[in-house]
Amino acid sequence: MKKKITIFGSTGSIGVSTLDIIKDHPDKYEVVGLSINNNYEKLLEQVRSYNPKVVSIQDERSYIKFKELNKSNDLKILNGNDSYGEILDNDTDIVVAAITGSAGLLPVVAAIERGITIALANKESLVCSGSLITSLAKKKGSLILPVDSEHNAIYQVLDLKNKSKISKLILTASGGPFLNKDINQLNNITPEQAIKHPNWSMGKKISVDSATMMNKGLELIEAHYLFDMPEDKIEIIVHPESIIHSCVEYTDGSILSQMGNPDMRTPISFALAYPSRISTSVDRLRLSSIEKLTFFEPDFEKFPCLELAYSSLKTKKSAPTTLNASNEIAVDAFLNQKISYLSIPKIVEKTLNKASISNINSIKDVIEIDQESRKLAKELVDSGGF
Amino acid sequence: MKKKITIFGSTGSIGVSTLDIIKDHPDKYEVVGLSINNNYEKLLEQVRSYNPKVVSIQDERSYIKFKELNKSNDLKILNGNDSYGEILDNDTDIVVAAITGSAGLLPVVAAIERGITIALANKESLVCSGSLITSLAKKKGSLILPVDSEHNAIYQVLDLKNKSKISKLILTASGGPFLNKDINQLNNITPEQAIKHPNWSMGKKISVDSATMMNKGLELIEAHYLFDMPEDKIEIIVHPESIIHSCVEYTDGSILSQMGNPDMRTPISFALAYPSRISTSVDRLRLSSIEKLTFFEPDFEKFPCLELAYSSLKTKKSAPTTLNASNEIAVDAFLNQKISYLSIPKIVEKTLNKASISNINSIKDVIEIDQESRKLAKELVDSGGF
Repeated sequence: MKKKITIFGSTGSIGVSTLDIIKDHPDKYEVVGLSINNNYEKLLEQVRSYNPKVVSIQDERSYIKFKELNKSNDLKILNGNDSYGEILDNDTDIVVAAITGSAGLLPVVAAIERGITIALANKESLVCSGSLITSLAKKKGSLILPVDSEHNAIYQVLDLKNKSKISKLILTASGGPFLNKDINQLNNITPEQAIKHPNWSMGKKISVDSATMMNKGLELIEAHYLFDMPEDKIEIIVHPESIIHSCVEYTDGSILSQMGNPDMRTPISFALAYPSRISTSVDRLRLSSIEKLTFFEPDFEKFPCLELAYSSLKTKKSAPTTLNASNEIAVDAFLNQKISYLSIPKIVEKTLNKASISNINSIKDVIEIDQESRKLAKELVDSGGF
Repeated sequence: MKKKITIFGSTGSIGVSTLDIIKDHPDKYEVVGLSINNNYEKLLEQVRSYNPKVVSIQDERSYIKFKELNKSNDLKILNGNDSYGEILDNDTDIVVAAITGSAGLLPVVAAIERGITIALANKESLVCSGSLITSLAKKKGSLILPVDSEHNAIYQVLDLKNKSKISKLILTASGGPFLNKDINQLNNITPEQAIKHPNWSMGKKISVDSATMMNKGLELIEAHYLFDMPEDKIEIIVHPESIIHSCVEYTDGSILSQMGNPDMRTPISFALAYPSRISTSVDRLRLSSIEKLTFFEPDFEKFPCLELAYSSLKTKKSAPTTLNASNEIAVDAFLNQKISYLSIPKIVEKTLNKASISNINSIKDVIEIDQESRKLAKELVDSGGF
């Protein structure tokens, strides 16, 4: 029996890597659904290669263009937000949730509602929705398998039978492109400098998050909800070589870790194959070819986003949702040269101070808080008062 | 219910570390049996502290001394080889097999015969007895939990459900005290130099084995039998910092590893607590306090014992038994200044060439081959013809 796969965000880097793995294992997987935002040309290629039953295109114009150009007669073509549920009405065994940002929240919820296993690459759904997502998943019997390389590494060495014997989770961080820059040199950082990541090739938003280390802050929050660990048992350690992808420390003194070359096909294949494993064409890590592995405490002064993430996690309730929403607005403003690099954490901090902290009892609450926080952050960007 | 522990070799470093762990967990473990060679004074202390039901003393004079000095009335005191079985006649849940060398073989077999779980620190029993031990253990339902830090590390990250997806085991090696010595400087090595290990404090025999890297060769053979992996899927990598204790590589590109400060209490506690874990007072590894981790291919020219171990494993049958026996004789001769450091691998190689390679069908076969190989090796030592 082949596993049926639906990919939300199939033209992004995670989506493309997922299809690359599926191509190597036609006996194990078939693609049933693909969802994209607007890259209809790439979707046309993917449809030709993988022959899904249904596609969904968010952007109206791209949807129309795709329909014109599509030659697959038996393909169901959907458009817009409401299609998240419909695309899953085909039997889907695994949803690869690879839409970046809080836009990825609704498809994840739709998949969980149907009890489908989720290969989760969208960290915002856990960051924004706190324990809502994990408790819903438990209720619906939906297994969440993290694809983020750090959380996937932890998942691989997590001894769930001995959870009380876990002394801490250790999230490794590359430190981003500005690790060795002096704090005083960060003033005039351009978007071009910020999106050049030393080890991973990623989208712009996540690359800026990596530069500010907010990415690690979001991963901290994600790890908290995913593994149900308090924030004081999750440590961030800078490991510039990005070879050890994260670790779990046990009370007997053992630190278990997963290593490998930085290639997302390893964590994706782990999630697709779980609880088995499959072969990948990922370049094998040769330990003897590594010059050295090093580790440093993160610099909380140079990377204030880390402290903001820890403190929002301590506050809990809607604080992580506001953190994430305001960061998205701030990064977007930075990429559009409306604010400076150093203003990103300032926008986030001011938004956190201004926003009301409330309980999150439903996805509706999440969406409202997300929108309210975006509004506040946008006002701050526009006013220049930060 | 407390687990009942019997320690073979209780006054050696593994034995002492085991008792140290048990002392911290009086609610979980009780000592029922202790066996030693000749350190009766230390045994007297251990008896006072841990109140076992039975002790066994190999050396006749020490046995007599112990009986004179012992004040514990209800203690059963045994002497000699035949006591291995008798000491286990008390309900024992776990045997810690910590006798070094091929002398440790018989107690391991006695424990397996009784279906007892074994925390195995005696690598020679697996090296010498090939698949005899593992097949007997399977038949008797005896679980073998490796205590050697390398094999224990592998055990901690071994996904037995996905054995076919293991691409290789990676045994890390400190490289011993002569890692950075030029090959030409090895001629006049003294026993004192050879037993100074950079990272671990161990007995003399194993320290010399570490210097020649025969220790890693024996571990290679041990790993082969313990994990049922062919020799071409077991790689040795020099890792001078001894932080990563070994790794397992999977076909998806993941390398899982166990790290920690070099302290045998971690692997021992893992074996005692398995499948749970217990806390230890082992100093926690702080990744940020590590200067760097490095990895190198081993130098087979400088450490010919490695090649001898690989080739004896390729030959299988009685070759590993002969390798181990001749190495014990050669190391002993070196420690007694009868032969030079560089003669150790020569004695082993010549013995392997002279000895008949035969099938091993019983423990009796093992003992015969062991004795024949020792005789051959001794003759070589005495003749000086190597």
